Amino acid sequence: MDTIIIGTIGLDDIQTPFGTVKNVLGGSATYASLAASLFTKPGIVAVAGDDFPKEHLEMFRKKGIDLEGLEKKGKTFRWQGKYEFDMNEAKTLKTDLNSLMDFKAKLPDKYKKAKYVFLGNIDPELQMHVIKQLKNPEVIILDTMNFWISGKKEKLLEVIGKVNILLINDGEARQLFRTTNLMKAASQALKLGPEIVIIKKGEHGSLMFTKDAHFNAPGYPLEDVKDPTGCGDSFGGTLMGYIAKTKSLDQKNIRKGIVYASSVASFNAEDFSTKKLEGLKIRDVQSRFEQLREIREF
Amino acid sequence: MDTIIIGTIGLDDIQTPFGTVKNVLGGSATYASLAASLFTKPGIVAVAGDDFPKEHLEMFRKKGIDLEGLEKKGKTFRWQGKYEFDMNEAKTLKTDLNSLMDFKAKLPDKYKKAKYVFLGNIDPELQMHVIKQLKNPEVIILDTMNFWISGKKEKLLEVIGKVNILLINDGEARQLFRTTNLMKAASQALKLGPEIVIIKKGEHGSLMFTKDAHFNAPGYPLEDVKDPTGCGDSFGGTLMGYIAKTKSLDQKNIRKGIVYASSVASFNAEDFSTKKLEGLKIRDVQSRFEQLREIREF
Repeated sequence: MDTIIIGTIGLDDIQTPFGTVKNVLGGSATYASLAASLFTKPGIVAVAGDDFPKEHLEMFRKKGIDLEGLEKKGKTFRWQGKYEFDMNEAKTLKTDLNSLMDFKAKLPDKYKKAKYVFLGNIDPELQMHVIKQLKNPEVIILDTMNFWISGKKEKLLEVIGKVNILLINDGEARQLFRTTNLMKAASQALKLGPEIVIIKKGEHGSLMFTKDAHFNAPGYPLEDVKDPTGCGDSFGGTLMGYIAKTKSLDQKNIRKGIVYASSVASFNAEDFSTKKLEGLKIRDVQSRFEQLREIREF
Repeated sequence: MDTIIIGTIGLDDIQTPFGTVKNVLGGSATYASLAASLFTKPGIVAVAGDDFPKEHLEMFRKKGIDLEGLEKKGKTFRWQGKYEFDMNEAKTLKTDLNSLMDFKAKLPDKYKKAKYVFLGNIDPELQMHVIKQLKNPEVIILDTMNFWISGKKEKLLEVIGKVNILLINDGEARQLFRTTNLMKAASQALKLGPEIVIIKKGEHGSLMFTKDAHFNAPGYPLEDVKDPTGCGDSFGGTLMGYIAKTKSLDQKNIRKGIVYASSVASFNAEDFSTKKLEGLKIRDVQSRFEQLREIREF
């Protein structure tokens, strides 16, 4: 396996001002692997329950996603979330960890040789355990969220020290590095080890920092945001897929990867659950990529 | 006079987490005219009191700012404001309108022929009164703030209907058009009359909308923001100055003007009051303009 993605697979109940869905496909590994599958054929490291609908597994396979790393046991992880009118942050109504509780993230042998590794949003202990099983990784991308910053900060900082690229939300970056200034947060993050830090700012786009470069990526102008669930995961998965395909971390390449990631994340927000990602074609992603270029020209 | 700027001139007391200053030069016309003076020689339509320090008048003159439209009477307008740690919005502690209370904004004859008019943040009744005195304006830019959206919404909407370019903050756009979606707010604003709507988003840059174009301008990455007072006014003044100099509203030109405006506004935030603007050279503005180009290349 060239590319692997660890994260959650779940069944979600989601309320937004534009509708309510129940029992729909969700989880960080789900969104990230679907997004990555636009550019590569990733393997998933995750757990789902015996109740997990077979049609989702079939859909993953059709997308070229390898399921050897997918454990099956107990009941599937469930999340209930709600978005208020401003759609900026999900409010968690309920979480049932279920089979995630004793998930060990043991890699199949063929996954241990992965060169491109996306550590999606999940317990940093599991992220670290994946890193330890890798034989010779070339690029590790880490995503996280406020829940782990509050609950497992030390372990999270340790994981940050082991990765090439850190993805983090603006609010989370301010929280983790105790500063309102994102430039300062990024400098601190770079000191922990990653060569590249990417701060995701939702509708405001994203900022990329290296020791000596800065990139400001626009957000795609969306008039209709239906469900932002999974946008961060889709962003990360796309970037991982693009890097796995192009095999380069040079500035020019990373910048393009980030804009592809914005394009895919913007599609994801336009419908509930994985509806948009499941039908997304690379030509649509490319078209929005070109629009993102056009809206920045001066 | 080719270019005129109406707004307030005041003396401010400002507290930020990085210091406190008292009795310093402020007001929307002050910041806007200093910024515009980088590109043109504007006239000011404003009022100051007999207590207004002569050195400020001398400084305006040295910058090529015409003061025939500056009334002198009573006591100068005073504003006390405070920024919390996140520096995003000023909290007004106290306002003494003083001579602003019966300011009539009567234009000197030579101002009535102005082609480029910046209606800085001030009572929309006064903004409308200025418009009515103009003989043959070519470009009118309107800036406003939440205070007038709450207090004089009908008059403000009437003024919006008379201008070519509307400048508005993101929070204010959401408030005025009762939507969280900035794309929707912009569409509604365009329906009121302006050809161009520019939504200012502070550190996140700005968005420009016309009937059929969209431009996303990056924010300049500042590690040290000392005092954001006047950044919006500086942005507007720069744009006005640039348009007055280049005499064109075509897309390419407007986009450049917006990036110059971002550049100047970012300098303004780096020190208290007008300290940065007073010493600012066009070559510094140009250098940051080039950096803004570099950080969004992909």
